[in-house]
This record gives sequence, structure tokens and C-alpha cells, in this order.
Amino acid sequence: MRCASGIEARQVDELAINIDPIQVGGRLTGDAMKAVIAYGDGYSVCDNCRKPNRLDYISKPPIAEFHKDVAAWLNMDAVRTVPGARRGFQAVAHTCVQKGDPVLLTSLSHYTEFLAVEGAGGIASEIPANEQHIVTPDAAALKIEEVKKQFGRAPVLAFIDHVDYQYGNMHDVKAIAKVCHQYDIPVLCNGAYTVGILPVNGKDLGVDFVVGSGHKSMAAPAPSGILATTTERAAEVFRTTAIIGDVTQRKFGIKEPEMMGCTLMGVTLIGMMASFPHVKERVKHFDCELENNRIVVDGLLLVEGTKILSEMPRKHTLTRADTIGSFDKVAESHKKRGFYFSSALGEKGVTGVIPGATKVWKFNTYGMTRKQALYLAEVFTDIANENGLPLRV
Amino acid sequence: MRCASGIEARQVDELAINIDPIQVGGRLTGDAMKAVIAYGDGYSVCDNCRKPNRLDYISKPPIAEFHKDVAAWLNMDAVRTVPGARRGFQAVAHTCVQKGDPVLLTSLSHYTEFLAVEGAGGIASEIPANEQHIVTPDAAALKIEEVKKQFGRAPVLAFIDHVDYQYGNMHDVKAIAKVCHQYDIPVLCNGAYTVGILPVNGKDLGVDFVVGSGHKSMAAPAPSGILATTTERAAEVFRTTAIIGDVTQRKFGIKEPEMMGCTLMGVTLIGMMASFPHVKERVKHFDCELENNRIVVDGLLLVEGTKILSEMPRKHTLTRADTIGSFDKVAESHKKRGFYFSSALGEKGVTGVIPGATKVWKFNTYGMTRKQALYLAEVFTDIANENGLPLRV
Repeated sequence: MRCASGIEARQVDELAINIDPIQVGGRLTGDAMKAVIAYGDGYSVCDNCRKPNRLDYISKPPIAEFHKDVAAWLNMDAVRTVPGARRGFQAVAHTCVQKGDPVLLTSLSHYTEFLAVEGAGGIASEIPANEQHIVTPDAAALKIEEVKKQFGRAPVLAFIDHVDYQYGNMHDVKAIAKVCHQYDIPVLCNGAYTVGILPVNGKDLGVDFVVGSGHKSMAAPAPSGILATTTERAAEVFRTTAIIGDVTQRKFGIKEPEMMGCTLMGVTLIGMMASFPHVKERVKHFDCELENNRIVVDGLLLVEGTKILSEMPRKHTLTRADTIGSFDKVAESHKKRGFYFSSALGEKGVTGVIPGATKVWKFNTYGMTRKQALYLAEVFTDIANENGLPLRV
Repeated sequence: MRCASGIEARQVDELAINIDPIQVGGRLTGDAMKAVIAYGDGYSVCDNCRKPNRLDYISKPPIAEFHKDVAAWLNMDAVRTVPGARRGFQAVAHTCVQKGDPVLLTSLSHYTEFLAVEGAGGIASEIPANEQHIVTPDAAALKIEEVKKQFGRAPVLAFIDHVDYQYGNMHDVKAIAKVCHQYDIPVLCNGAYTVGILPVNGKDLGVDFVVGSGHKSMAAPAPSGILATTTERAAEVFRTTAIIGDVTQRKFGIKEPEMMGCTLMGVTLIGMMASFPHVKERVKHFDCELENNRIVVDGLLLVEGTKILSEMPRKHTLTRADTIGSFDKVAESHKKRGFYFSSALGEKGVTGVIPGATKVWKFNTYGMTRKQALYLAEVFTDIANENGLPLRV
């Protein structure tokens, strides 16, 4: 069925249990879907834009209120919406980093953080994660000292992933931020996998910036996200424009250059807003999500030779599995080779695992029901049974 | 009727003739609406993302094909989608402009172009429009010489609006680009009001960059847009990442730092794609749009004392009216003051004029039917009649 010329209607989450690592937190709520339909048109939220003509001042629909609510919810002072978390990284890097400045990242940082540093001309300095794939405050301190020796000065900014995209491990942002602040290094907490998924308290974490992703974790359309900060840092990253037209002497009011003025003028913003009450509620029930994850992981681990590479017990639903000692063995001789695995999953109504992947792969159990979790656990053992792989007794 | 908690369902274009200057070209087509419903979820277009893992390589839905088609349609060599035209300006400014560099804009440039220049540290140098509010190649040449005298070098980049947002006037981009190129200044054509509205041929204009807005003029959700360029400039603005993780030695493949990697991962992109066949068709019929505009403008001019501040005959449907000598006279004594005008328009089923505006205001007739144009022309004379304003004989 096509929804437009050449474009198949997408029915992924309607027809299967989706465990795609990046998709599950960004599925729209029913309210977001309704709002998206009502506000699909381009500049749809701008009907009642009045002076001072900036997106976050519009009161109908309640965009101004949404900004305040998100700030309060994250326990930060100021919030702006951005076209994806990456645009939040970009704004902060562009504000804090000058050409040649060392910038702290971690060995698990997302590529978009690196691109933000690259764009600002910074030098990537990774804090190495330990053998358990955890970034520790001690490692941060060591790295800062190392940078100081090499560059003669401390890094100018630190990007710390709250939960990283590789292992879904949770890092002690609070303790790392404390270390960074001893060197006056502002800290950006990358909450792309946590804001909208589990409770995030910026002031408690003691960070200068919290970045969240609408389309990854706030049940919103893409591209969307939020950048939250403190009053102090807001004066820097949300500074207003200073450029003047040399002929017309025009100035541009309270537009913010790092935001490029207004950011999300329609469907993306309204989707975030419509989902927000549900998102606020769902983060309170993350324990149920972890229990579902435990059920699935337990099922997977029943298959002999399977390893979970993420920290255990799991603190997040994004999980990295190593099935070289189990499902990959079948791939060696199966006529479909590695594709047998995603194919078998598909036949059983499970989607979101990269076709062909049987060695190291990721999945995310976020948002499924208990019944689906129990079923998915069985699916893994069933596929093992069907392919003669032994189960742990 | 609410579509979500605290959010009124939007029914602007369903219930009235909308003449909002920025909204009319961004209303979704039926196909875009259907595609938006099917692809509302966050990372919805990423189901079949495979190596090399970049948005513009995805073939299902046909994103790769769309990129090629848009480039061919604009007669340019390479295209990327961006979260709004402004993000295209930003990418080009960040690529071409160093701190302290003079950059050509015009006295009619949009604020987002100024913000892009400000972000890159450039100095705004406006080419003054003439008394008819037209930017001429002669004025461009004079300004370049002036900049050369002042800075000891030519500007490093020129932003030229194809049709400006203030008057909706069309500027001779081709002739201005020719002048700029004599000084080796790359030229960005801001097609926010033209790409998707009327035929745009980048090579014929002889420009280095064409930027278009999805939500302003391509019947797409916000934020969306396109940045098109030549093979030569693509190597600069679409250069791939060079940053390396100092510990992991990680590189990030073919991700492009100016694009921050992938750009529009869901509903915004699919909306542009679904509307694209219709947009390609509609630009061929811009003459009908101009005829509708003429009908409306003629009606408005029937009201004695009304002036059109935009160039005449109109070359674009975005039009600036001066009704200080007509509708504003009523505002002086009306109990609703200036609000009587938008209120009267509203009662007659017309929306999109800023409430309270009776002096200088803008409207855009794009996308209306002939019948609606004839009706709107009558509405203006009717409001004049009802308020005792004389009509021209």
C-alpha cells in the first residue's frame, strides 16, 4: 500500500514488535499523532506569533508554557527546542569552543558530538571507558590532567553521555561533572537516551547543559530535541543577536544566533508538546521497562554461548548482545547465512535487528508490554531450538 | 476541539482563505498528509538504513532518488535536505566565512541570513536596494568596490534573495551573480520564496548555492529545506568528517559536519518527498497564481488611497500593501481601532493578516482558486463600502 507516489506506507510498529535500538522511544503517542495531523502544515504553530516574534514566546498553542514546563521537569533554568539533539551539541560547541581548543568526549561518545566539536574547530579528547565500558570520574580526572599536560590548559567543554549509544550503559554524570567543575569545565549531559525515558534532574546531576532528543526518546517526530541550561550558561548559548545591517542599521531583536532564530515551527514541536504529558508520566515507570528488559535478556541468555556486553544488571533498555557463540554458529552453514536470524525474527513478528547481524548486535525493549517481553524471550529460545542450538540448563 | 491536552486542533486553512505571507506555500498536499500519518514516528525513514549509514543513501523509502531528483529539478549538481533554509545558510556561511570577513547581503535580506553571517563571525555588508526596492547588479558592483576599499579585499560570500520577504520583489540574481563572480565571490541564492513556487534553474542563474524552504514553499512540514550546490562547492560544504578519536582512533565515515550527519529523519523529509511530484507540477502554473494575485491587487487598489509598495506588475504573490490612506483612516475612529480590519476579514472568511495591522501589511495569494481570488477582491471593496471608504471610479 502506497501513501504517496513511490512511497510505501510504513506499518512497522503496527505489524511487529519493534526492538530497533533508536526507534522505540520516538514512536508517537496517540495524542502526538492527532496533533501531527492537525498541525502538519509548514508554519502551523505560527498563527498567533506576535511581538517579540520568537517561537518560544507563542502562547497559543502553549509553546511558551511548554518551554517552561520542560525546564522545570528537567530541573534546569532555560530550555529551547532544537532540530535534533545534534543541533543542541552544535550550539553549545559553537558557543564554548574556539579553534584548537581541547574538548572532552568519551570513548563511547556519539558521532554527532564529534561533528559538533569538529565544526567548532575543537580537538577531540576521549575519556577512555573502563573494561566494563563505563566512563568513571577517575578516568575523567586522569584525562583532564593529560590534556593539561599536552595543551597547557584544561579542556573547554565536556560532552558526557548519560547513557551511551553503544552499550546502553549508564555513566556517573554527577561524579564526572563534579570532577570537570573542579577544572571549571562546563559539562553537557547528552540525554538522547534518557530524557523522556527515565527521570533526569539536571541540577542534581550538576551539569551545565542537558540535551534531549525528541525523535529518539520523547515520542516526537524528527528532527526535534531540547537544549536545557542554567541561567548562567543561558546568557552565553542563548545570547541574542548583535549583528547590524551596515546600510539599513537593522537589528534583529531577541533572535538567538545559536538557535538561528526560531527552531521548530510546526509538526515537530507540536508532536513533542502533545506527547509531553505522557512522557512525563512514562519516565516514572521505567522500572517496569527494566523488568521487561530483564525478561528478554534472561531469555536470550538461556541460549548457550550468548553474552550480554552491556553492564548487568541493566540500567537501560538499550542492550548490546554478543551471539558469536550461539546464533552466529548457525549462520556459518545456514542457506540464508546470517540473514536467517532476522528472517526468523521477522516470521515471528519481531523487527528492528539489522538483517544479517548474528555476531554483535543491539536491541531496545523500551515500550513493549509485559506480554510482548515474555513472548520475545520465548522467540529467542524458539529460534535456538529450531536451529539446534543448546539451551543452558 | 482539542487534539491533545491543552492544544486546540488547528483548522485555519480548512475554515478560511488564508493569505498569511509565510504560510501559503507550506500547506501540505494530500499526499504529504498521508505520508506524514504513515511516517509520524521519530526515526521512521531509517528502517532500511544500511552502510554507509547516511540519510541520503537510503533507497527505501526512495530518499536517495529524491536527492538526485531535486538536484536535477534545480539544475544543480548536489542536494542535501536541511532543517529549514536557515540551516542551509548556516552551513554555507560556516564553510565560506572566517571571523572578520565581509559578507554581502542586501538591504532586504532575511534575518536568518544575518544570523548565519553572525554565527560565522562575518561582517554584514548590505547592497542597498533602489527606490523601487530592487537590488540591482550595479548596486552590487558598487558595494563590492566599497567593501574592497574598506576591508582591502572583496566579500567572501554573497547572499542574494531571489524574491525578498519584505516586498516579494524579484531580483536579478543572474546579473548580480555575474558581477559577484567577477570578484570570485560565491553566490547563495535564497530561494525560500521561489523554490517550490516558480521554476528555479540554478545553473542558468549561475549561482553556487540554491537554498529552498520546505515549510515555506515546498508543501512540507517544518523544519525542512534543501541546500543545492555545484560539484565544486559540494566538495567544500559537503566535505566529510576528518575528526578522529584520540583514544579509540575512531573515524566517522562519510558523515558531513556541516550537515551534522543525518538531517531530516522522519516526517519532515517524507512530507517533502510526498509533495515533490505536486510541487514540480505546480511551479509550471505560476502564471495562474500571478493572475489571481492581479485580481486581488486590483480589488485592493479600487479602495481609494491604497498603495501597493511591491513592484508592479507583480512577479510574485507575496505583496506589500500600504493602506494608510484607506483602511487605516477607519481605525482612527472605529471602536475596535485597527482590529476592525482583521476582524472584518475574519467575518468574511479571510485569515492571515496580522490583527491590528491597517497601515503597512503583507499578504500572499499563493494557492488560492480563481473563485477565491475574485471573492477576496470583493471582500476588500466590501469592507471599504461598509466603512464609508470611497472607491476609485
